[in-house]
Amino acid sequence: MEQNNKIEKDTQLVYGKNPVAELLKSGGGVDTVYLADSLPAQVAAYYAALAKQAGAVTKQVKSIKLKAMCGTESHQGVAAYASSIEYVGLNDLLAQAEEKGHDPFIVLADGVEDPHNLGAIIRTAFLCGADGIVIPKRGGAPITPIVMKASAGAAARLPVARVANIGESVRQLKKQNVFVYCADMDGAPLHKNNLTGAIALVMGSEGSGVSPLVKKLCDGTVSLSMAGQDTGVDSFNVSVAAGIIMYEIMHQRGNQN
Amino acid sequence: MEQNNKIEKDTQLVYGKNPVAELLKSGGGVDTVYLADSLPAQVAAYYAALAKQAGAVTKQVKSIKLKAMCGTESHQGVAAYASSIEYVGLNDLLAQAEEKGHDPFIVLADGVEDPHNLGAIIRTAFLCGADGIVIPKRGGAPITPIVMKASAGAAARLPVARVANIGESVRQLKKQNVFVYCADMDGAPLHKNNLTGAIALVMGSEGSGVSPLVKKLCDGTVSLSMAGQDTGVDSFNVSVAAGIIMYEIMHQRGNQN
Repeated sequence: MEQNNKIEKDTQLVYGKNPVAELLKSGGGVDTVYLADSLPAQVAAYYAALAKQAGAVTKQVKSIKLKAMCGTESHQGVAAYASSIEYVGLNDLLAQAEEKGHDPFIVLADGVEDPHNLGAIIRTAFLCGADGIVIPKRGGAPITPIVMKASAGAAARLPVARVANIGESVRQLKKQNVFVYCADMDGAPLHKNNLTGAIALVMGSEGSGVSPLVKKLCDGTVSLSMAGQDTGVDSFNVSVAAGIIMYEIMHQRGNQN
Repeated sequence: MEQNNKIEKDTQLVYGKNPVAELLKSGGGVDTVYLADSLPAQVAAYYAALAKQAGAVTKQVKSIKLKAMCGTESHQGVAAYASSIEYVGLNDLLAQAEEKGHDPFIVLADGVEDPHNLGAIIRTAFLCGADGIVIPKRGGAPITPIVMKASAGAAARLPVARVANIGESVRQLKKQNVFVYCADMDGAPLHKNNLTGAIALVMGSEGSGVSPLVKKLCDGTVSLSMAGQDTGVDSFNVSVAAGIIMYEIMHQRGNQN
């Protein structure tokens, strides 16, 4: 499978106070932030907080070790490895489908917050032959190293589009004659839907599902049945639900890649 | 749904060095371990290590707070809340099916190690109308508070049998005319299997799948198809795989509870 839409690079060392702060704030994937033991406690705490928000861990190292890592003394006590994810545009996902000569199959994560869930969704999307995944710039997990790990590396192989507005992406997909389903409680049971042809699937957030505005824009709603149900246990985990639906989509498409 | 096989209790405070150490070592569910700030660092580190192994967090509190929590001064600086899970026997799961008046549907987790995965599997098993789940006493995650949380509480509603030997459970199930499937790469594709009737499904560990000895005992193997595949990304996450298969089992059983 050729992937000219996706550039994979080795991880890159970023050092210096501003570059590392920018990197962490950008939501770019960072695994570990290295802080020199010589840093004032307040400064270290600032970077630790930024790192936590970005899903990265911090590691205290001796200044001399940091110097060796960076190959320079101008590290200002802070360094981090930036991950290799390059986001693509929504059109790149459609182009990928055309290149493969099949109907588009695109998954949109409308605010999936848990990086393990997002990673598992990306892994399943890849295995089920999806052309890519769309995630929002705000209100959902970006592709962090935790997501990468939970995806078993699929996040580096499946094109990922990061968009300002999921609703706008749904509109664009509909314009391209892609039938957009959302997963929600009040739709037709999974097996009653015709899931062939150009298709997109919107999965909502863990807490509140697909946002009402996005749902309104969708062409249809697909629901999962439940044999057992109880207070509190009345929905599937989002990555499991996504897996069940994507597997059925793949099945109805005839397992084509 | 009546659950006379499962006794739910409130969490229980355990205190004192030996009781807390025993509790943590037993794999009994513990959420938080409270350590008095008066504890020697080495002792605190010992309990922190035990807690970490058990999937619990530690919290440092003032001795006076611990005294108030325990209602006594004889806490020795250590306390923990034990969770409420009561394990049942394999026969209780079969009895539950009989009580419900349907063919048994039992899920066995043969060494699932990640508590998030085990929790998600239990959640899905509950929603798909399974009669219970079987986990091993060794070589897999017990029902910890993380599992409980990941199960959305289903681990307190679905009967859980904790057995010394998964292979022995497979043998017992077969004796009771339950058809035992394992999930593995080299079986018949999911939709080609007749998954009706008395059924059990064995899911393997994240790293190495169903153990060879257990697999040999199973009546059949069910496999998931993949449209996309690549080095490293060649299998579904175990909780997603379990979800896809259990949903199909529920579907073929006609969604009966």
